[in-house]
Amino acid sequence: MSSGYGKAFALMREAGQGPWRDYTRHAFVEGLKDGTLPRAAFLHYLRQDYVFLTHFSRAWALAVVKAQTHEEMQVASATVNGLMHEEMMLHVGVCADAGISREKLFATPERPENLAYTRFVLEAGYSGDYLTLLAALVPCVIGYAEIGARLAQEATSETYRPWIDTYAGDQYQSYCRDIGALLDSALIRRLGENYDTLPIWSDLCKTFETATMLEVNFWQMGLTP
Amino acid sequence: MSSGYGKAFALMREAGQGPWRDYTRHAFVEGLKDGTLPRAAFLHYLRQDYVFLTHFSRAWALAVVKAQTHEEMQVASATVNGLMHEEMMLHVGVCADAGISREKLFATPERPENLAYTRFVLEAGYSGDYLTLLAALVPCVIGYAEIGARLAQEATSETYRPWIDTYAGDQYQSYCRDIGALLDSALIRRLGENYDTLPIWSDLCKTFETATMLEVNFWQMGLTP
Amino acid sequence: MSSGYGKAFALMREAGQGPWRDYTRHAFVEGLKDGTLPRAAFLHYLRQDYVFLTHFSRAWALAVVKAQTHEEMQVASATVNGLMHEEMMLHVGVCADAGISREKLFATPERPENLAYTRFVLEAGYSGDYLTLLAALVPCVIGYAEIGARLAQEATSETYRPWIDTYAGDQYQSYCRDIGALLDSALIRRLGENYDTLPIWSDLCKTFETATMLEVNFWQMGLTP
Amino acid sequence: MSSGYGKAFALMREAGQGPWRDYTRHAFVEGLKDGTLPRAAFLHYLRQDYVFLTHFSRAWALAVVKAQTHEEMQVASATVNGLMHEEMMLHVGVCADAGISREKLFATPERPENLAYTRFVLEAGYSGDYLTLLAALVPCVIGYAEIGARLAQEATSETYRPWIDTYAGDQYQSYCRDIGALLDSALIRRLGENYDTLPIWSDLCKTFETATMLEVNFWQMGLTP
Repeated sequence: MSSGYGKAFALMREAGQGPWRDYTRHAFVEGLKDGTLPRAAFLHYLRQDYVFLTHFSRAWALAVVKAQTHEEMQVASATVNGLMHEEMMLHVGVCADAGISREKLFATPERPENLAYTRFVLEAGYSGDYLTLLAALVPCVIGYAEIGARLAQEATSETYRPWIDTYAGDQYQSYCRDIGALLDSALIRRLGENYDTLPIWSDLCKTFETATMLEVNFWQMGLTP
Repeated sequence: MSSGYGKAFALMREAGQGPWRDYTRHAFVEGLKDGTLPRAAFLHYLRQDYVFLTHFSRAWALAVVKAQTHEEMQVASATVNGLMHEEMMLHVGVCADAGISREKLFATPERPENLAYTRFVLEAGYSGDYLTLLAALVPCVIGYAEIGARLAQEATSETYRPWIDTYAGDQYQSYCRDIGALLDSALIRRLGENYDTLPIWSDLCKTFETATMLEVNFWQMGLTP
Repeated sequence: MSSGYGKAFALMREAGQGPWRDYTRHAFVEGLKDGTLPRAAFLHYLRQDYVFLTHFSRAWALAVVKAQTHEEMQVASATVNGLMHEEMMLHVGVCADAGISREKLFATPERPENLAYTRFVLEAGYSGDYLTLLAALVPCVIGYAEIGARLAQEATSETYRPWIDTYAGDQYQSYCRDIGALLDSALIRRLGENYDTLPIWSDLCKTFETATMLEVNFWQMGLTP
Repeated sequence: MSSGYGKAFALMREAGQGPWRDYTRHAFVEGLKDGTLPRAAFLHYLRQDYVFLTHFSRAWALAVVKAQTHEEMQVASATVNGLMHEEMMLHVGVCADAGISREKLFATPERPENLAYTRFVLEAGYSGDYLTLLAALVPCVIGYAEIGARLAQEATSETYRPWIDTYAGDQYQSYCRDIGALLDSALIRRLGENYDTLPIWSDLCKTFETATMLEVNFWQMGLTP
């Protein structure tokens, strides 16, 4: 299957295909698909994800700092805005509908599986360069696009349709194709066309894979409110 | 004169009033006021300022990373957007009108006085916390508001009126009052109401003063294309 | 009980006394005390701790970067050396005696509980200032001193005596009193004598407590090779 | 002339040979050679260099944080120690002999040319990775070795012989060969043997050249107490 999200992403996913499958086919995801995921688990996940997105926005802001071109800055900066003003607002809305107030949402205690993931991404970004940071960011960004696209096809229940539609929708899919293109151009700009033959490529794949495994742990946490 | 930009800014300005005067009453500024500033100097300054704003945007993005509340994140994030999509575009426009192409503008070699300033701000932000970073950022932001407001009153020439109006205008003035309020609330949130009695206060004033002196050097550079 | 490791540490420990007890009285620790800890668990822990110490050394090096006085730099710099040339070498030696080669030790796959802890500390240090970083570092440093001192008194088995002696010994205890004094002086230098009355104090205690909880998870990981 | 400090350094120096010559043949350096440099300029330089070395130590500590192997950590960590316990102590001694107390030395106000250089290096390190940081660090480290070695041959005066001997001596020369080897191996480890054919190579050379130009400005500052 062609990913549609660029060459580098496809190569990274292939290099870490075991964890990638564990992530994108996790029981939590399958529960979204067939509607068997308990509502309590979904809301628990959503609250943790809200905390996650706060730190994930910070990580994308760090990408603005680490960028080397205006275009690299702009994509990252637009992502910060999208996360803070759209995606996080969706969570606020869904939680409000479920009787979880903004105050309660904001005060959600951060679970260790959540903390592990965002601190890994931020630290990878602080200690490395723009490429390292992107490699840590894309599994979440594009993984959700892949999950959304598949579930839009395969879902057998309407229960979690709004969540699926968010990530399967044109806006998010188009954004993820841009992120895939950004990753490709950032690699080529620094390392040339044969970036995947360089030693640093395996470091980047390792970062991608670690982030993927932390996604698996995040879903697992979602199942255990 | 009441600053209108909050209490902390007023205190910091007072603590470093010598350099502050050198900055806000610099010969370059007076040349904007009476129209005697040579056009070549103005365009040279504008090109350097474009490079400056790239790094200044990165520094505000770092403020998003270092923020501790959603509001602190949002003000910083909105600033990054404002800088990249409005203020930098103004420079592109003025330069285009003067026959300086985008390519030439983007390729402006960074002068040491320019580099010194932005790297100081970024390093202060990386090594310190949100407060340190704000203390390094506000002299530029609010200083321009103060200069703009004064020149709007005192200008005896129309030559640099569009520049003056940008910083004297309601939008920029209102934004700077928000930044002043952000500084006040960030201080109180971390250090309490009596923040100016703590040892760390003199470190913050020192950071503010160093940034102010680097502004003086930046104007001076503007006079020597 | 007076901690002997300074005032700020004592206050922070008291503020997070529940997690502190979970950490310093963990089943893993009690197993070291009475010798019932399985050797396999101990060696597993030691290998993870070796990976941990690599990142912990990096975090102390970050403290050198974030320091504001020569003394603050020197204590942090000496710690980096101590960790890399002494503590990590102890682990190399114990592992070698147990038939675990240097190569195998170096190649130990990092467990998520391990990664969560070091990335939390490093990110806290990158995003915050010297104080935040110290608050994240001391639970490990001084917690081991407290555990070592207690186990030296209470151990009913000789099995893990060399480990206990390392942390109960004069050299480590003296070092930890220095770290406690460093924390006290760093706080007073920035925030004055009444630092524990400022809002930022609760942020620092929160950082300390989170690091403590990550220590609990680290011991728990030790029990599950 | 073969540099003796490794292949990458030789290539970087060649790429920026104009600024490199301005740096290593600066009037300040020639004044050290023939003894015509005024004592006041030398002492002024030494005091600024003391401030410089504080921040340069911090930058090398940042290299420990950014390292990816134990060897990369150890060379950087040993450098921090060497700078803080040896090189800075030499300055303390020379200044003391000249009647400049430790207190006065520590209180030296940082000149803008000095600040520009260290903040550039630190920011390059924070925003980039280990390679970027090394590229910013080596012009100072190895440039002094090259200057020392040449002046040991060409000096026509004994006035600044102790300074020359410090950098011409076996210990410093041997250390610089290690740093050159570190740069080579760090490049190969990440980018492979043909690192100088990749786009990122010109970024690294640009960083090296900017640091070199900031060295020129530093010498120039030395001439104007």
